[in-house]
This record gives sequence, structure tokens and C-alpha cells, in this order.
Amino acid sequence: MELKWTADEVFGFLETEFPHALQRGLDYEVVSLAPEALDLRARADERHLRPGGTISGPTMMELVDCAIYVLLLAHHREQARLAVTTNLAISFLRKPKPGPLLAMVRLIKHGRTLSVARTDIISEADGRQVASSEATYFMGGAG
Amino acid sequence: MELKWTADEVFGFLETEFPHALQRGLDYEVVSLAPEALDLRARADERHLRPGGTISGPTMMELVDCAIYVLLLAHHREQARLAVTTNLAISFLRKPKPGPLLAMVRLIKHGRTLSVARTDIISEADGRQVASSEATYFMGGAG
Amino acid sequence: MELKWTADEVFGFLETEFPHALQRGLDYEVVSLAPEALDLRARADERHLRPGGTISGPTMMELVDCAIYVLLLAHHREQARLAVTTNLAISFLRKPKPGPLLAMVRLIKHGRTLSVARTDIISEADGRQVASSEATYFMGGAG
Amino acid sequence: MELKWTADEVFGFLETEFPHALQRGLDYEVVSLAPEALDLRARADERHLRPGGTISGPTMMELVDCAIYVLLLAHHREQARLAVTTNLAISFLRKPKPGPLLAMVRLIKHGRTLSVARTDIISEADGRQVASSEATYFMGGAG
Repeated sequence: MELKWTADEVFGFLETEFPHALQRGLDYEVVSLAPEALDLRARADERHLRPGGTISGPTMMELVDCAIYVLLLAHHREQARLAVTTNLAISFLRKPKPGPLLAMVRLIKHGRTLSVARTDIISEADGRQVASSEATYFMGGAG
Repeated sequence: MELKWTADEVFGFLETEFPHALQRGLDYEVVSLAPEALDLRARADERHLRPGGTISGPTMMELVDCAIYVLLLAHHREQARLAVTTNLAISFLRKPKPGPLLAMVRLIKHGRTLSVARTDIISEADGRQVASSEATYFMGGAG
Repeated sequence: MELKWTADEVFGFLETEFPHALQRGLDYEVVSLAPEALDLRARADERHLRPGGTISGPTMMELVDCAIYVLLLAHHREQARLAVTTNLAISFLRKPKPGPLLAMVRLIKHGRTLSVARTDIISEADGRQVASSEATYFMGGAG
Repeated sequence: MELKWTADEVFGFLETEFPHALQRGLDYEVVSLAPEALDLRARADERHLRPGGTISGPTMMELVDCAIYVLLLAHHREQARLAVTTNLAISFLRKPKPGPLLAMVRLIKHGRTLSVARTDIISEADGRQVASSEATYFMGGAG
């Protein structure tokens, strides 16, 4: 499936429709965007740190959810506004050191009503994978 | 297993050690705390809303993670500081209306090194369950 | 939602349509069946044991999947034939001793297209919970 | 980490210690075995089919669990006998056509006490991925 929005169009939509998503201190940057594949970098600020300086679990969950939403918007434009996460599972592999995180999302299923996204989170400080997630999205109304 | 800290002692610890966890706009209130069982109410502010006024998925994931951490601290005091989430799964059942959320955590396994917590999230606006989560915690160092 | 089939009608359907599901050595008995709630007992034979005599994980996953399918059939009759599991998560809490297992399924969401089932597995040998599962089903075609 | 057993040594151990695991109708073949990476082919027989001829979900869950156990045995020899699955999540992407399945396991974390395995299942009939799983193993006793 081809992309219908550029990264700029997606973030323009988010800034208008969903401004609080972008105001919680995660500074996002699209590294690459292709059909069914997005690499999104996030810079966490001090609000996202746990004692010891590692980045918190909820910060990584928010990054995963946001990255998938960006990719679905790029594919389906404002129609993806109705997409709902039906479930999300995440494994935390190592405590990430402070520094940017790279979320690599791949749609391993991209159906008319259900999509499944796998996301690896890499700590750019040392290049190691720190988390792995799988999430299902339902395109449509109430389920 | 008995509790070693009261709710006030837990939040005193969090305010000192982990202040940013409590400054992201979720206003927490311990409704009840008993061995292996915590009910924690959260009031989301506008930063936690999605378009349409529903509370976002990452907000609920953050609530689950925080509630479990509070319960583990109440049981193990500062020793739980080292507890790490190894994985978390959450199913989103319905879009929560604006209003307080109640996270009901139960430790269904509470071992020396591994604990498993099940959490129901109830929307107090209509009394319906909006999410269900299961998470595993590892007490200790690097895994 | 009300039930449309009795337990006997469900198992009659399974014996006709899906005989191999019932021939893998798990001996099933419906303990109670009510709207959105099924308790299903399974007696494992030696094919389901791991060294040390505990019941294997795949045996418990099969029990969960079968129990949910039985409950969906009771609700939707042969229409549930098209139900597909979209994802299943299970936590193993304790090694079950040999003896019957009781799977307690509850539909915590029962929508037109998506249903979410939570299942506790209890070891009847000692009354303790040995596993906890959450699974999502999609009623319909290709997803 | 290096491997301590060959595939033949692993299966020799399983045949002695855990014979029923290999007698449920799945015919396993090790396609490749390297540190932290195993490709395991399984041929399902008719006991593993659902109506319509697709391979059942529990069959795929059993394949995932078995493949990870084989890889842990190859790394840790009989010490892995004590490994317990703490949790397993699987997403079903497409209904597999009849024919061999290839489980590709990768250990994305391989710690002293906790390991996390990601497994893709590919249907060799058409080369498409049919399931994706993530599972955590605890090396040790009661947890």
C-alpha cells in the first residue's frame, strides 16, 4: 500500500487535531518513512527519566503508540483518526541510557480492518535494542 | 505478604526520588491499599485527551505502570526501587469518557524474584471497564 | 447477550466439524455455562506432562483457546466458526500439579466484530491459579 | 554466547526426558542452528487442522514454545530443563495454508536469569508470515 501523506502532512494534522500528544516533552523526528515502515527518533527530556537516569517504561510505550499512529496516518490520512489500539504488548530488554531513542515500526499485517505493528526501540547511545513491542489496531468504529 | 509502607510513605518516597513521575498531569489518589491489592484513582487533565475527548492509551499505560510500582513499594519499600517491568500487555476495551479512572491492581503472583500484576481500569464516569492489563516485574538487577 | 446453544449443541458441532480438536487427549467437561462466562474442566493425560509431572504450557494455551471458542459458539452458533484469534497473551504463574485444570473464561468485551476474553486457569489439585490469559477474537472474514 | 549442544544432542535429550513433546504429531526438522538463532520446520498432520484446512492456533503456539526450548537447550544443555516460560504473546496474522511451517526464533535478550525470544512463523506454502510471537523465559527455580 502506498503512502498518502508526507511526514510534514502527518505532523501538521497532529498539531491541529491532537496538540497535547506533541507537548509532553518528547521531541520527535522522522528519520525515514516508507510504505509500512517508519523510523521515528525521540529525544526524552528530564520528565521522562527514572532514578538512575534511565528512560521510563511509559515513555517508551508512548513512543510506540505515537509512532504507529504516525505511520497509519501517513497511509490513511485523516481516516486513521478513527484507528483504535486494541492491544499492545511490550517487552523491556535493557534499561536505556539517556539519549535519543529510535522507534522502528513495521506493519507486519496491514488489513482493511486490522493492522499489526511490530516496533523495535533502539537506544542510540549504544546502538542496543531496549524494547520490543507488538500492537494491533482496528480501523473503524466501536469494535 | 504484609505491607511495609503506607500510601503516604510511598508517595513521600516518590516525591523525593522520582518527582517527574508525579508531574505529568495525572492527579493520583489512593482509594484503598491492602496486601497485594491497590485501587488507585487518577484524574487526567487535558494533556491526556485524544480528539473527541477520550483519554489516550499511553495515559492508561502510564497509570497501570505507576499503580503497580506504588503497590510494590508499599510491599518492599525502597528495595522495589530496583524492580523492573519485564513486559506489559494491555487490551483496550472501550474509549473512556472524560472523568476519573480507577486502576485496580492485584498481584496474582508475588514471588521472590518475579511478580505478576493484573490491572483493571474502570471509567468512573459510567462504571465500565475500559482496559485490562497484565504485567510482569523482576525484582533485582540486570536480569 | 444471551446464549443460543447449549453445551451439548456446541460439542455436537465440534465433533462434526472439528473432530481433531477433541482428540488430542484433553478430556473436557463443561462445569458451568452462562452468558459471557464459561467454566471448562480439562483432564490432561500423560501426553500433556512435562518432566517432573507438571502440565505443559502448550496444553494450557490449547485449553484457553478451546474454552473461548466453546463460549463464542454458545453465543453465536455456527457463525462463530469464522471467529479468528487475533492475539493471545498468557502468563504462567506456577507449575500445575497433575490433576484437572479449570479454565474460567469471561468475555470482558463482547462487540459486534471484536471480543476480548480473560481466562484464569486453576489447578484443582490445590485450588491455586496457575495461569492467566487475555485473548482477542475477530468475528468475520479476513481482517 | 556459544552453543553447547548440537541439534542431535538436543533431540536426543528430548526423546529421553520429554518424549510426549515429540509424539503429538508435529514432525520437527532443524533447518539451522546458530547462537541465539534457530530455524525449525514443522510438518503438521491432520490433527492440527481446523475446518477449512488451516493450521490451528494452538499448533502454532506449541511450535513456538518447542522451538524456544530447543534453542535454550542448545545453549545451556540440561540446565535449561529448569527454564520456565513466564509469559508468551502471539499475534495471528493470516490463516496458514496446509504445508510446512518455519519457526524462526531469535533471542533478543539472553540474560543470566531472563531471556526474551521473538519468533516469526512463516508458511512455506506461500512464503508469508502467519504469526509473530514474543516470549520470556526464566532460568531457575520457582520465580
